[in-house]
Amino acid sequence: MVPAGTNAPRLIGQPVARLEDPPLLRGEGCFAGDVSFPHQLHMRVVRAQVAHGRILSIDTQPARARPGVVAVWTAADVAEVPPIPFRATKVQGLEAYCQPVLARGVVRYVGEPLAVVFANDAYAAEDVADLVVPEIEERPALLDAGEPPREFEPGRDTEPTVIRKGYGDVAAAFAAAAHVIELDLSVGRHSGVPLECRGAVARYDASRDVLEMYGAAKKSHWNRDEMARMLGRSPSTFHLYEGHVGGGFGVRGELYPEDVLVCVAALRLRRPVKWIEDRRENLVATNHSRQQRHRIAAAVDAEGRILGIRDQFFHDQGAYVRTHGARVADMAAGLLLGPYRVPAYEVAGHFRLTNKTPAATYRSPGRYETTFVRERLMDAVAQKVGIDAVEVRRRNLVASAEMPYARPLDALGTDVVLDSGDYAGLLGKALSRAGWDDRKAEVARRRASGEIVGLGLGMFVEKSGLGPSDGVRLTVDPSGCIELVTGAGSVGQGMETALAQICGEALGVDYRRIRVVRGRTDQIEFGNGAHASRVTVMSGSATQIAARAVREKALAAAAEMLQADPADLDLVDGRVVRRGGGARASVGLDEVARHLHPSSRYIGRRPPGLSAEGWFYSDHMNYPYGVHIAQVRLDPGTGMVHVERYLVAYDVGRAVNPMLIDGQIVGGLAQGLGGALYEQFTYDAQGQPLATTFADYLMVTAREMPDTVDVLITEDAPSPLNPLGLKGAGEGGTNAAGAAVAAAVDDALGRPGFVTALPVSPARIVAALATARTGAAS
Amino acid sequence: MVPAGTNAPRLIGQPVARLEDPPLLRGEGCFAGDVSFPHQLHMRVVRAQVAHGRILSIDTQPARARPGVVAVWTAADVAEVPPIPFRATKVQGLEAYCQPVLARGVVRYVGEPLAVVFANDAYAAEDVADLVVPEIEERPALLDAGEPPREFEPGRDTEPTVIRKGYGDVAAAFAAAAHVIELDLSVGRHSGVPLECRGAVARYDASRDVLEMYGAAKKSHWNRDEMARMLGRSPSTFHLYEGHVGGGFGVRGELYPEDVLVCVAALRLRRPVKWIEDRRENLVATNHSRQQRHRIAAAVDAEGRILGIRDQFFHDQGAYVRTHGARVADMAAGLLLGPYRVPAYEVAGHFRLTNKTPAATYRSPGRYETTFVRERLMDAVAQKVGIDAVEVRRRNLVASAEMPYARPLDALGTDVVLDSGDYAGLLGKALSRAGWDDRKAEVARRRASGEIVGLGLGMFVEKSGLGPSDGVRLTVDPSGCIELVTGAGSVGQGMETALAQICGEALGVDYRRIRVVRGRTDQIEFGNGAHASRVTVMSGSATQIAARAVREKALAAAAEMLQADPADLDLVDGRVVRRGGGARASVGLDEVARHLHPSSRYIGRRPPGLSAEGWFYSDHMNYPYGVHIAQVRLDPGTGMVHVERYLVAYDVGRAVNPMLIDGQIVGGLAQGLGGALYEQFTYDAQGQPLATTFADYLMVTAREMPDTVDVLITEDAPSPLNPLGLKGAGEGGTNAAGAAVAAAVDDALGRPGFVTALPVSPARIVAALATARTGAAS
Repeated sequence: MVPAGTNAPRLIGQPVARLEDPPLLRGEGCFAGDVSFPHQLHMRVVRAQVAHGRILSIDTQPARARPGVVAVWTAADVAEVPPIPFRATKVQGLEAYCQPVLARGVVRYVGEPLAVVFANDAYAAEDVADLVVPEIEERPALLDAGEPPREFEPGRDTEPTVIRKGYGDVAAAFAAAAHVIELDLSVGRHSGVPLECRGAVARYDASRDVLEMYGAAKKSHWNRDEMARMLGRSPSTFHLYEGHVGGGFGVRGELYPEDVLVCVAALRLRRPVKWIEDRRENLVATNHSRQQRHRIAAAVDAEGRILGIRDQFFHDQGAYVRTHGARVADMAAGLLLGPYRVPAYEVAGHFRLTNKTPAATYRSPGRYETTFVRERLMDAVAQKVGIDAVEVRRRNLVASAEMPYARPLDALGTDVVLDSGDYAGLLGKALSRAGWDDRKAEVARRRASGEIVGLGLGMFVEKSGLGPSDGVRLTVDPSGCIELVTGAGSVGQGMETALAQICGEALGVDYRRIRVVRGRTDQIEFGNGAHASRVTVMSGSATQIAARAVREKALAAAAEMLQADPADLDLVDGRVVRRGGGARASVGLDEVARHLHPSSRYIGRRPPGLSAEGWFYSDHMNYPYGVHIAQVRLDPGTGMVHVERYLVAYDVGRAVNPMLIDGQIVGGLAQGLGGALYEQFTYDAQGQPLATTFADYLMVTAREMPDTVDVLITEDAPSPLNPLGLKGAGEGGTNAAGAAVAAAVDDALGRPGFVTALPVSPARIVAALATARTGAAS
Repeated sequence: MVPAGTNAPRLIGQPVARLEDPPLLRGEGCFAGDVSFPHQLHMRVVRAQVAHGRILSIDTQPARARPGVVAVWTAADVAEVPPIPFRATKVQGLEAYCQPVLARGVVRYVGEPLAVVFANDAYAAEDVADLVVPEIEERPALLDAGEPPREFEPGRDTEPTVIRKGYGDVAAAFAAAAHVIELDLSVGRHSGVPLECRGAVARYDASRDVLEMYGAAKKSHWNRDEMARMLGRSPSTFHLYEGHVGGGFGVRGELYPEDVLVCVAALRLRRPVKWIEDRRENLVATNHSRQQRHRIAAAVDAEGRILGIRDQFFHDQGAYVRTHGARVADMAAGLLLGPYRVPAYEVAGHFRLTNKTPAATYRSPGRYETTFVRERLMDAVAQKVGIDAVEVRRRNLVASAEMPYARPLDALGTDVVLDSGDYAGLLGKALSRAGWDDRKAEVARRRASGEIVGLGLGMFVEKSGLGPSDGVRLTVDPSGCIELVTGAGSVGQGMETALAQICGEALGVDYRRIRVVRGRTDQIEFGNGAHASRVTVMSGSATQIAARAVREKALAAAAEMLQADPADLDLVDGRVVRRGGGARASVGLDEVARHLHPSSRYIGRRPPGLSAEGWFYSDHMNYPYGVHIAQVRLDPGTGMVHVERYLVAYDVGRAVNPMLIDGQIVGGLAQGLGGALYEQFTYDAQGQPLATTFADYLMVTAREMPDTVDVLITEDAPSPLNPLGLKGAGEGGTNAAGAAVAAAVDDALGRPGFVTALPVSPARIVAALATARTGAAS
């Protein structure tokens, strides 16, 4: 907050226009595909066409003989490059499952990189890649993570670890229960599918011994550090550049084999190397996500109050452990309980490998899945004890008086302490905003007239603001331009605008005067990219700290210049002004910066410059929370689910820019609905992927979006963990979409518990409706 | 100095190998010509072919009509771009003489940019440039700066300013003199001619609104800031990159019209724009230097002690005032007196414009010229009072006991205070090292046998370490790599090595582990490039300060890690060690850096990172000093002067790397001899340059270098102005070359005062020898 008594502009909370948009709207965006260097090579990946097998040989000779081909590599050519590591996690035993940059000895999924071709143009590279024909001894594909563990490879089985968490006396809870409700629920395999496929361009500058990679996203510093280690370089000699990013969603910007390969090639071949993923590759090579099967049981008392929850789930990791390690399973286990008071809990997450594309995080990872599971469970409890969906939740929600609410669980290595919240309050606001009772009446009316319509709701707790730290550097240049350098990533979420608003408010300047420099590891020593809905919380808090430090420096220097007491000065509209005026009433920030220039005659022996770093630390995550309410209509002929109305109510602690949050929520909802109704990476019995084009992998388009999406952003429960009360807001639109749609479909069909798997199957709906008609007719 | 009691490596003073060499020796250098971007345009400058005239019209239509030509601009197309500014100086009235980026209305020298052509390839651009034919109404060329001022253009005459300095009662000194010696002396027009011609490549990244220019050198930050102002941009959005530089010498890297033009074009045409200067352009377009005529007079007593000096000089600035303003003339006036005690002094420097290429600084600017003049004067005094060249100097040198010796003069805006020195001591060492008496005997012997040989000496005071400030940033990355970021420029002088030595000694690490990042304005907010022999002094001192701060941080963190008292720790060979060993005896700097990483669990709430900035400030320059001794043999047939032996004795305060200084001195001597004997930019009566190829502009090659060059580096007088006692060492090889050669030629001819102009004229020597023979015969 700005010190009292100032008339600095109030920027935080305003739906100001995005700083990011002008170049994008003018067609001046720079995506990975837009980066080129003279004399560059093009890399094409030769991918496995069988799901599982032993590599007997790979004949690269025909490809190498082609004109314009500079090199063809298989695993033997990159034998010194270690497999891709994963981020620190407490789970042991995963290292042996990491992916080599090119398949070594065995292939484990269709799409796995077997070889790479480097040619003078992209067309030649693609054509020549077809000439690289591996000889592979096929083995049966292991495709069901729910099957008992078996040998995956000699000495390694399909279950490297089981994640176990829990607290309380679960057995006693179940023994004492009035009712025990058991469910078997599945979430399908789908993922973030950005508009921009992946891409990477590497260039080695021998004159400076600097390696550069363009096309980074999400975790540039981490990827840089890890690749530096893999390549035996110092991180200082290796820089990653993130340009514009055509969608992140958790999948884009992880460290993939192709990133490493372009870097190795640039170093070894001494030419820039460019690789751009095509869509088919994207759908088999970029991280999948979500696929889990949960066998969950609740023990409840006669009034539907939860006494204990027991869950056993099977996480389908696909063929390798990628950069996230077991984080999705860890979060599923640690965050399953959501907003409810659960006295005893026990979970065993079976982390299983299969012969499919490796999986990792996707928007609301571990929460989308468990919210579906938990909310299905709550609906089943309601049904069992004969109360409605709202009442069962009211009876079980953690109360605001209990906040902060510590659960004896951990997630992402932090203790789970729900920092603040009024869950029941938000439920009430959501029901009121949605006109729940009117909606119920409308649904009943329309049902009576033959329409198949239903209402459903889901509640959830998100998590955000993962620590431990973030920093920014703020500099006012002699022209008065304010540069904010951050190691956070800009993947479309609007972070440049949000940070500029926070900075502008603290400095008393128009946010459009702030230039956010990001996505360049050579510009700031440390950074955390964009993940875990942490940027606004962590980098935003660091920004406020840095801006206040700059503010203090500016006031102190201006005090010299104006011969005033700093306490009598304020920063307004980019100028330091003397309250009440005077001889010389103000100086511009540009003048202050020049006063502090190292060649200024006023500089004395001070460290020069009008700049400061700000660092913010946090030991705990914070927990925004929300409610989804869906109204659906089913088509009896096709079984398709049409979402008519949708409400997302979301408490974000403090909304820096409501317009950005609204955009995040609506976009996130599209993805949540995709997973609920349309998107699925299906495989045949041999492990051949069946969804490798947009004709088969069904993205939500404008047509599939609800007729009406209402977004209610509340700020009832600011986080006590940072000065601005911020909580992240990027995943709340996705989180409960599966849960709310499933409940609405149940309601439309009049069959509680009908939906047990996502995406909802039109064929099952058609069959159910046919049965219902037959039953009605009989 | 390293704290007492450590066994850190002694790096300062060692002739260690240059860090800069590996990429250069492997052919991996990156000069301006090596920088290219896809889709780039090539710029070609259409230059004036007459020295003076009014532009009636420039027809660009034929050029514009050619295929592959994207644009052709004249002054009207860049009307909004202001003329190129000059660096702050106390001299007023020069602004009106600054150069526009393209000639406006008039042309003033052959080579002046009249128009620019942008085409898809460099060959087309060059061909098409010939089609741009200006119609110019010629005016008489003004070529002699010694003529009385006249109108240069309406309202402006050829003398924008006269620089006057002085102190004491000069009239009284001359009135009281036993002898008055008057000389009329000239130094020819020559300059630094780097192996690499200039070049500039500009690129505008619309996606980030960042303008970049590659090919910068010398003063990247200043050039960036000034061009930003000219283009109406914030400096934060504009970055200059200095790659390898094929010779600086003061001329390369100043802000020239072509730099601005490529930047304007990149912004306007939205394509990268490349310009590479060819040699003919280089010889007419890059700064000239040196040309001055002095009418100097000394008042001396009967023993040859100077009572006063009066000088009137005419500085031939050429057609425009460039970035240096009147600095060369200012330094000539302020530093003319060199090492001598001069009770009264009066100088008037007539700063005159002519229709020749504009002039500015070149290695030892203002000192090469005035050392020639002053030492000629000293030789004339010796002749007049009948003492020898050594004795006249001994009688007049400022004594070491008088140090620091403040002169009531200023130069470059600082008071001239000779900081330390033992001039007579160095003279003695030089004579001894050269075997002066033996040489005199040898010369006498050979002369007797018909050879035309002679000995001469010159003494000088250099200046270095211009303030006000310099800073570096030092960071140890988690791999233990030490990065030193500096705004100083690397133009071949070896500064990366010197700074690494200073850093390595303070940190106790091998200097090869230190990576110097320089020449990138996006990497450090402020910088001063490479000029005025200031880098080792200023940036070196800043480096020591930063390294000590990092050392302290490392010891404090290691103390935590080793549970030791920081006072018991030392930094040795990249590790913090516990004196006397112990349970865990040491930690590597890499481990310390990881301990201080923001994601380290030990970081607490500290600002993370093992890094520090160091800033050094200085109000005064420091003054290294030296002696040149030349032995020459004249060819009676051609009049050519062959330099047989040469000694440069130079006191640098403290030699960080004697090998680098040796290289600087020998290289500088080659340039000094060039100006003394070979190099001259001559013009015909119409102002047409006659030296536009290396057939006419005679560079010193290995053949012209002395058979023996001896370099004596001393450290008798460390500077009291910085902790290491450093003085710069880049210009001492050049400074007195003209003076010493002139004296030696006089001696060889047996005609004191014969040489009155540089370069020494073979024709005059031939004539003199003919006269001598005739005289001898008559």
